[in-house]
Amino acid sequence: MRAVNGQRNDIVADKPNGFELRKCIFPLGRWQIAIWWVERMRANPVIEHHGELVSLDPLVNLLADDMKAVNAMILQRLASDVPLIPELAGHLIAAGGKRIRPMMTLAGAQIAGGSAHAVGLATAVEFIHSATLLHDDVIDESNLRRGRDTANALWGNEASVLVGDFLFARAFELMVEAGDITVLGQLANASARITEGEIKQMTIAGMPDTPQDTYFDVITGKTAILFAAAAAAGAKLAGANDNDVAVMHDYGLQLGLAFQLMDDAMDYGVSSSAMGKNIGDDFIDQKITLPVILAWQDGDANDREFWQRTMGDGNSADGDLATAQAILARHNAIDRSIAIAGDYANAAIAALSRLSSPNQNQMPIIVALGAAARFSAARQN
Amino acid sequence: MRAVNGQRNDIVADKPNGFELRKCIFPLGRWQIAIWWVERMRANPVIEHHGELVSLDPLVNLLADDMKAVNAMILQRLASDVPLIPELAGHLIAAGGKRIRPMMTLAGAQIAGGSAHAVGLATAVEFIHSATLLHDDVIDESNLRRGRDTANALWGNEASVLVGDFLFARAFELMVEAGDITVLGQLANASARITEGEIKQMTIAGMPDTPQDTYFDVITGKTAILFAAAAAAGAKLAGANDNDVAVMHDYGLQLGLAFQLMDDAMDYGVSSSAMGKNIGDDFIDQKITLPVILAWQDGDANDREFWQRTMGDGNSADGDLATAQAILARHNAIDRSIAIAGDYANAAIAALSRLSSPNQNQMPIIVALGAAARFSAARQN
Repeated sequence: MRAVNGQRNDIVADKPNGFELRKCIFPLGRWQIAIWWVERMRANPVIEHHGELVSLDPLVNLLADDMKAVNAMILQRLASDVPLIPELAGHLIAAGGKRIRPMMTLAGAQIAGGSAHAVGLATAVEFIHSATLLHDDVIDESNLRRGRDTANALWGNEASVLVGDFLFARAFELMVEAGDITVLGQLANASARITEGEIKQMTIAGMPDTPQDTYFDVITGKTAILFAAAAAAGAKLAGANDNDVAVMHDYGLQLGLAFQLMDDAMDYGVSSSAMGKNIGDDFIDQKITLPVILAWQDGDANDREFWQRTMGDGNSADGDLATAQAILARHNAIDRSIAIAGDYANAAIAALSRLSSPNQNQMPIIVALGAAARFSAARQN
Repeated sequence: MRAVNGQRNDIVADKPNGFELRKCIFPLGRWQIAIWWVERMRANPVIEHHGELVSLDPLVNLLADDMKAVNAMILQRLASDVPLIPELAGHLIAAGGKRIRPMMTLAGAQIAGGSAHAVGLATAVEFIHSATLLHDDVIDESNLRRGRDTANALWGNEASVLVGDFLFARAFELMVEAGDITVLGQLANASARITEGEIKQMTIAGMPDTPQDTYFDVITGKTAILFAAAAAAGAKLAGANDNDVAVMHDYGLQLGLAFQLMDDAMDYGVSSSAMGKNIGDDFIDQKITLPVILAWQDGDANDREFWQRTMGDGNSADGDLATAQAILARHNAIDRSIAIAGDYANAAIAALSRLSSPNQNQMPIIVALGAAARFSAARQN
């Protein structure tokens, strides 16, 4: 049994074939709401969970009006008398994606009854994320993101660097408008930590013997911190108490870790058309992620020689990606990564149970956040 | 006679050989202080002005203690558990430069009697500037800045992009600590306008027929806006009234324009060892600056064919830089650019005369700012 951070997220029964029955209890005044689900370890996560509990849809539906406002504000704030800015940034942002990060902010605000400034702050969060993507694509020399040509492939690296800077500056303008200097400080700090995570990732490139701790440091910085700060910022802005702000921060952190673990696992396993990115990108870029770390740790001398030649020395040939996938499969490295993502999803759900006396109005958003957490460890696109 | 924005900056007498006697009067309670200087048009700016009025030294001396604190804070805030960050950023920042931008903030604060948060805000301004330099060097593919290898030449483009992002985020953390959300908003807006200026510069690369207005838009954004916002932010933070904040903004703007005009002029005329940068960089990078715009506008068909082949099509050969310098000399394009820089320096000085009832304590900093403005149109290193 794997460790889960929550207090009320208990494994009720171990079932045959690795199935577990789990439950999570939310206090609701004098009442409690209990949610049960069945979970299967080491399995395809799509069939692992049942029904509406594994889905982003409840969150998307609940936040639909606010997200419409966010999308409108994105377009409005891309305006510039330099036409390249809305053109390039618009290309990236129009490509879509699930917009989970701004939804974190909106959901955090809803937990505390909502805030008139939540839409602006959510837009700022999406701008920070978009700036990061533009700079990432420059760094990775990626040509494909979400199934479309990347901005750097179309407009060049220079434009991507500068428009990323523009989006980052605009994000801070939006945060200033939201008017809460504490929130602003937390998002500024999160932005610094994102870059620290990315730089650390760069420094471990080509090192398949990277310890797991270092990998978790990297994904905490580059991904999970923004989820955490986004959710906490929304709650703080809407006047949540310190406990609930901390809960939303923890929820976002665990969700973000699950999210990145899945992303890294799927880079070795799902087709480009479904993912909207090139399969095997991390392998080619010598980007060290958990599956490779696990396979290195459990591998024999032959395995390690292979990883060193390909991901260490960058000396790959045709067929090496298939070999990598075979070695990963032999060590169950992908399934084990996905299982760990599941742990973090559980921890995110457990965090929600620590919200201080939620009332009935909050239940739909809490349930939706739970379903989103589960989705983060099961997503296929 | 060229236009000058000030009310009390009058040309007293035109002298032979293009010399002018100018004066600027500062109100001081019931008294006035008048400063006279002799100015020669279309001349080497180093011999153009006399004595202590053409120097950064008075400002450097007045702000020495605060700048020591800024330098200490720079080192302190570069700290990170990712060693590459202080290493790379430290390389850039240790290379020095004149640190005029943070001095703008400190001087702006001194105008209004000083502020305990001025050092932090000045550090933020230097971080924004350093971030821009790191990204510029990536974009320009520069290998030399201030006489040293650039960070991108030593650590690669990826690291420079990310450490630039880190410095930018740290700048906002420092601004949050300064605690004035209005100031923060103005610096966030300035940051967005810097990138707009840089992007616009990129879009006119290779277009020698660029109108002068577009060039001034570019340098206003990429350079002058940060000088302006830095000076105004210092004044605002220290509690200056609206008039004085606006005066410091105008002073910084005019100074910044003078500064960039000189930089662009000197790219065609001063040796690499004195400038600490490669001579002819702009020519090679097809970066369109005022000297080339002037020479294009006044040039004949042969000249234009030359500019189109070299700066337009990027099809340069050995000896073309010397030819470019000869054409610029034939059109007095460098001297004319320097003369326009002198106009902006005068406008900066004129702005200072609009400060509301300065007292005797303020006179040293006002005189020092005047000397710095004159220096900005005369600098040789």
